[in-house]
Amino acid sequence: MRDFSEDHRWLSINTATVRCQWELDRIISECAERGIRAISPWRDQVAEVGLDKVARRLRETGLELSGYCRGGMFPAPTPEGRKLALQDNRRAVDEAKTLNAACLVLVVGGLPGALQGKAEHKDIAGARNEIRDGIASTLEYARQIEVPLAIEPLHPMYAAERACVNTMEHALDLCDLLDPERSGALGVAVDVYHVWWDPKLEAQIKRAGDARLLAFHVCDWLVPTRDLLNDRGMMGDGVIEIPRIRGWMEAAGFAGYSEVEIFSSENWWKRQGAEVLDTCIERHRSAV
Amino acid sequence: MRDFSEDHRWLSINTATVRCQWELDRIISECAERGIRAISPWRDQVAEVGLDKVARRLRETGLELSGYCRGGMFPAPTPEGRKLALQDNRRAVDEAKTLNAACLVLVVGGLPGALQGKAEHKDIAGARNEIRDGIASTLEYARQIEVPLAIEPLHPMYAAERACVNTMEHALDLCDLLDPERSGALGVAVDVYHVWWDPKLEAQIKRAGDARLLAFHVCDWLVPTRDLLNDRGMMGDGVIEIPRIRGWMEAAGFAGYSEVEIFSSENWWKRQGAEVLDTCIERHRSAV
Repeated sequence: MRDFSEDHRWLSINTATVRCQWELDRIISECAERGIRAISPWRDQVAEVGLDKVARRLRETGLELSGYCRGGMFPAPTPEGRKLALQDNRRAVDEAKTLNAACLVLVVGGLPGALQGKAEHKDIAGARNEIRDGIASTLEYARQIEVPLAIEPLHPMYAAERACVNTMEHALDLCDLLDPERSGALGVAVDVYHVWWDPKLEAQIKRAGDARLLAFHVCDWLVPTRDLLNDRGMMGDGVIEIPRIRGWMEAAGFAGYSEVEIFSSENWWKRQGAEVLDTCIERHRSAV
Repeated sequence: MRDFSEDHRWLSINTATVRCQWELDRIISECAERGIRAISPWRDQVAEVGLDKVARRLRETGLELSGYCRGGMFPAPTPEGRKLALQDNRRAVDEAKTLNAACLVLVVGGLPGALQGKAEHKDIAGARNEIRDGIASTLEYARQIEVPLAIEPLHPMYAAERACVNTMEHALDLCDLLDPERSGALGVAVDVYHVWWDPKLEAQIKRAGDARLLAFHVCDWLVPTRDLLNDRGMMGDGVIEIPRIRGWMEAAGFAGYSEVEIFSSENWWKRQGAEVLDTCIERHRSAV
């Protein structure tokens, strides 16, 4: 297992972590100044600055993209809606290619309308079929231009609104179905916040292996957790055995970045951006 | 599948649903008056009225107990603490026997201290070992006096504080380990709120079969869910396909009560008790 205690070569910052403090342009500068070698930006943050400008800034600074957030959200109540989702995913693949991202992260979607506050139906099995078909279609294009897709299983508390793929096992079943040859074109993003509770986690990470382990996201599960969405903790402040899970990842062949992704309007979003990044660096060394 | 639309013969009320409105003595009267045939009370509610008095009131009214809430909470940071937990579980088994409960529901516990706000450690695998041993020990006694134990897998968002058995599969693995003969002494309580998201739910209910399906709890998952603990919805107000899941239960051989268990300080706990019970009856017919 790699020693993270001496430097932060393998730290990546998911740019949602400081989205309330800085625009992406500034985030790139602040990360580069601190010797952070990778980020994972969100599409709206890229759009705000401009895709070409972001690509240029990445080249200038030498920053890599450990991932690009995000594609997915495939289910829709109408064929028209599903077609629009596919078109949008195709654009996300193109952007990921332009930015040379290691993968496009897929938050696959839940019950149509639920994220907007009212589910159009309750047919979760049907939504899962639409997700399977949506990934299959997006994968066909992403393969051509060589952008790996990373299915991110989300915590089951997000099954209705955000993603009804909620376990590594389910995500890997989809991978096996759609990419049986384990080509590297389709895999998973392992976010400890979403999967730490799963008694099958170690076995499923092993099952995934190097070919399917496309990203590793870290933060912590706070006790108590006060909000379903905006109460992620900084690594070391919660109850997740992050080093143990990273050990499982590395034993399975993963040798990429540890990407810090914290949403926390109640806490970290209110602090100075510099303090947040410096804490990420320190905790990456001491708690990841 | 049984037709619930014409009557409420198979409705049970988990008494936490109206715990803020009435003492248990009154809850028993109000349920009996409405032709509700079963309840599932909590230990603290029973203690408040007195075990013997509750037993007498149940005999007088003819009310059955679809379950008794609850045993469990096995992990502790010291051998002493684990021993106290076992003693407490033994008392819970005795009470369940006195009240002639169909089963003692086990909320198995999570990381020691987490429920009180500070986890003593992060070793979830270790906590699971203590849970396995705690159930084994309690089962030995419960078998003797013929009180079935029902492991209740809780939603993964409760893994730290309340129960780190979070899927039917995990609960049934424990059942197979500790009761391989499928004697009826050990099984599961299926609460739709905790397991509705699981893509393996149908298969695991089938695996459980009649011998292991000891209780069926209903409420609903609201969109959005505003609080991790106190925002359960009334059946029909959320996104769970309750009749579909009940169909799976009945296909597997379950023919018992549908027990309504709603915690919801923000909503149902503020209403009149009579309104809550009448709504449970109506929704049992229309949405279960």
